[in-house]
Amino acid sequence: MTQRVLTGITTTGTLHLGNYVGAIRPAIAASREPGMESFFFMADYHALIKCDEPERIATSRLQIAATWLAAGLDPERVVFYRQSDIPEIPELTWLLTCVTSKGQMNRAHAYKAATDANTAAGEDADAGITMGLYSYPILMAADILMFNAHRVPVGKDQAQHIEMTRDVAQRFNHLFGRGDDFFVLPEAQIDAEMELLPGLDGRKMSKSYDNVVPLFEGGSKALKDAIARIVTDSKLPGEPKEPEGQALVTIFDAFATPEQRAAFRAELRAGLAWGEAKQRLFDQVESQIGPMRARYAELIAAPEKIEKILLEGAAKARALAAPLLARAREAVGLRSFTAPLQTAAAATKAEKPALPVFKQYRESDGQFYFKLNAADGTPLLQSRGFAGGRDAGAWVARLKREGAAALAEAPVERVADEAALGAALQALVEATAAA
Amino acid sequence: MTQRVLTGITTTGTLHLGNYVGAIRPAIAASREPGMESFFFMADYHALIKCDEPERIATSRLQIAATWLAAGLDPERVVFYRQSDIPEIPELTWLLTCVTSKGQMNRAHAYKAATDANTAAGEDADAGITMGLYSYPILMAADILMFNAHRVPVGKDQAQHIEMTRDVAQRFNHLFGRGDDFFVLPEAQIDAEMELLPGLDGRKMSKSYDNVVPLFEGGSKALKDAIARIVTDSKLPGEPKEPEGQALVTIFDAFATPEQRAAFRAELRAGLAWGEAKQRLFDQVESQIGPMRARYAELIAAPEKIEKILLEGAAKARALAAPLLARAREAVGLRSFTAPLQTAAAATKAEKPALPVFKQYRESDGQFYFKLNAADGTPLLQSRGFAGGRDAGAWVARLKREGAAALAEAPVERVADEAALGAALQALVEATAAA
Repeated sequence: MTQRVLTGITTTGTLHLGNYVGAIRPAIAASREPGMESFFFMADYHALIKCDEPERIATSRLQIAATWLAAGLDPERVVFYRQSDIPEIPELTWLLTCVTSKGQMNRAHAYKAATDANTAAGEDADAGITMGLYSYPILMAADILMFNAHRVPVGKDQAQHIEMTRDVAQRFNHLFGRGDDFFVLPEAQIDAEMELLPGLDGRKMSKSYDNVVPLFEGGSKALKDAIARIVTDSKLPGEPKEPEGQALVTIFDAFATPEQRAAFRAELRAGLAWGEAKQRLFDQVESQIGPMRARYAELIAAPEKIEKILLEGAAKARALAAPLLARAREAVGLRSFTAPLQTAAAATKAEKPALPVFKQYRESDGQFYFKLNAADGTPLLQSRGFAGGRDAGAWVARLKREGAAALAEAPVERVADEAALGAALQALVEATAAA
Repeated sequence: MTQRVLTGITTTGTLHLGNYVGAIRPAIAASREPGMESFFFMADYHALIKCDEPERIATSRLQIAATWLAAGLDPERVVFYRQSDIPEIPELTWLLTCVTSKGQMNRAHAYKAATDANTAAGEDADAGITMGLYSYPILMAADILMFNAHRVPVGKDQAQHIEMTRDVAQRFNHLFGRGDDFFVLPEAQIDAEMELLPGLDGRKMSKSYDNVVPLFEGGSKALKDAIARIVTDSKLPGEPKEPEGQALVTIFDAFATPEQRAAFRAELRAGLAWGEAKQRLFDQVESQIGPMRARYAELIAAPEKIEKILLEGAAKARALAAPLLARAREAVGLRSFTAPLQTAAAATKAEKPALPVFKQYRESDGQFYFKLNAADGTPLLQSRGFAGGRDAGAWVARLKREGAAALAEAPVERVADEAALGAALQALVEATAAA
């Protein structure tokens, strides 16, 4: 089956060589693999969380779209769109918000880091924290579930969000899936071997270390100047040099074939001057980045072309998002009055008989309950209250496994007649066995 | 100026006579007053927060739309729509989410009541609480700000939400308003004189007291049966009866002219039997509710008519919502790439010169700062940090009032040259004096 992969692109900031090697290049390469359906989106709704400078939002977004296109993202092959061109996403966000537990948001890393910082500073835990920062994992879940993505490439720090997305999807499926899985549960794809490029000083290349080599900004001169500032050891020209562990060599590697890597190492060991080595590195990088920079300049000068590409991407994305949202609205009960209330259920039934549904819930008395309803909503069983949700869940599992045989011991009240109940449980037992 | 009034309609539950007298009838009457532009919406996104039964959502929504139409809501005169037919609302919700402080949501009454209950039960404070319950005040702010409503009729328990809406609107105006007020700050309209109908037992009519007289449900028979169960004193036929304080009389009053009220009282004082009195009450209520019930039955039998009315209402609403959302997107920086970045600012400038903007903010060091930027974003002034936001605000106010004269004392660093800064402050002083 085709794997659907969804990649979110941060739309603020200026990109450096580390972003290209670590994120842009591998993502574009992956999108060219067969059997992949790739979605790339500019996460500009997310950008609003941390930035209230409209000009910067607008400018960065354009620059970053141009960068990805210049770097080889093929909008014919992938679906490339701006998140903010898909109104289905915020609407789905609301539907998901209604099934997301607040406790889960409390555990989100980004939020916890912010409250920890506040608490350490003697502030109110939530001081200065916006609802955007707090609830964006739900927006992220909508980004992913909107297209039923199978895989989401993320950094380790984002893996938790994929777990949250799975939880939200499972809850929606449980409440509204009518026995089907409405949403695909996505997998985080954490590339252990993702290349981390060293910066000028040998530490990870990062704006916060002020050690970056700019990607396009400042042209080839800025690239050359940055490379000139890469820290090396103080070996003189002619002295043999140990290439391993040199930032300069690691950066070279990221742009070189195995043969070129071996040749560069041999030259260094043979005494190549650092100044010469830096010129080789510049030539090597420039040979690949230079043509992209030229494409970037062309694109930036023709923003209407990028606009057109992104609007076409949005049209492709909405062609998928709109029907999915329509089904989600139908599932939660936001239906046209002209669609007879049972139509959808009946249509499902024609394909396969709808199963009775166990629902677990908590009452205002704080206790956990479950009930069994027929597919048409007729109540069949009602449990007594349990102190823990796990106990209720265990009974549901047993009833699904053993059916009517477990009824004698189960702490439940029968709402329907024995025949209806027995048939319902039997159907569940068969479905459970088949699963 | 025309006053825009926005009324949200809860779309779950079955309506009783108290809902009609206390909410539906006065809202419809108000919508017929001159100088009013009335918006009525079915709050069905909100319904999802508390209800995960799709069939109930779907059915209730239809019934309640039919009820309001049967009760005389005139879709030609007002804008009557389903919230869920306006995709601009969830999108605006996200834009507002990014400017809403989490601390404000923590103080929302509905959320606090839920956490109090959890804490009292020895549970985790957020046990069983969804993000829907927690964040719906932002959705409500979007409902209101989407149409720049001036007034929102609400119960006392909802007044806090209007305050929150004002805060969110103010923050958006401050950050993105470019000196203009982007959003109208709505006023809560709390009708002190809103009629509270007594129920069968004399307490407030409420489903939770099980003392309601149904509005349409069960037909005239159910109305008659309910009226027969109204508690009276045990005076016999012929005995003089004190009408004041009798639930039966108060309900009669709600459907009678002053003359009819006086006549009914006189008859009771003259010894009218309670049974007779109940018949009079039934006749009085049925004379008004009966025709509505017939219209209700017609409407429910023709859901396609209601659908058409609501879709027409949604089209009217979206004709207002779409341009406002477009302006909001433009303001936060979600712009078309083909619109040159300064176009919107330039267009504003043609009408009146754009003013420099003071921005107040808090840094991660916990201190409060302000800066002054020219309308095009060029930095002009940067303050030092203040321990309190109020101190920063006081300096902003003084600089706006006194201009360059206050510069000598102000704890600020000049970023631009004296001339640019002086001109900017002078423009602000003039604008402040003119306001």
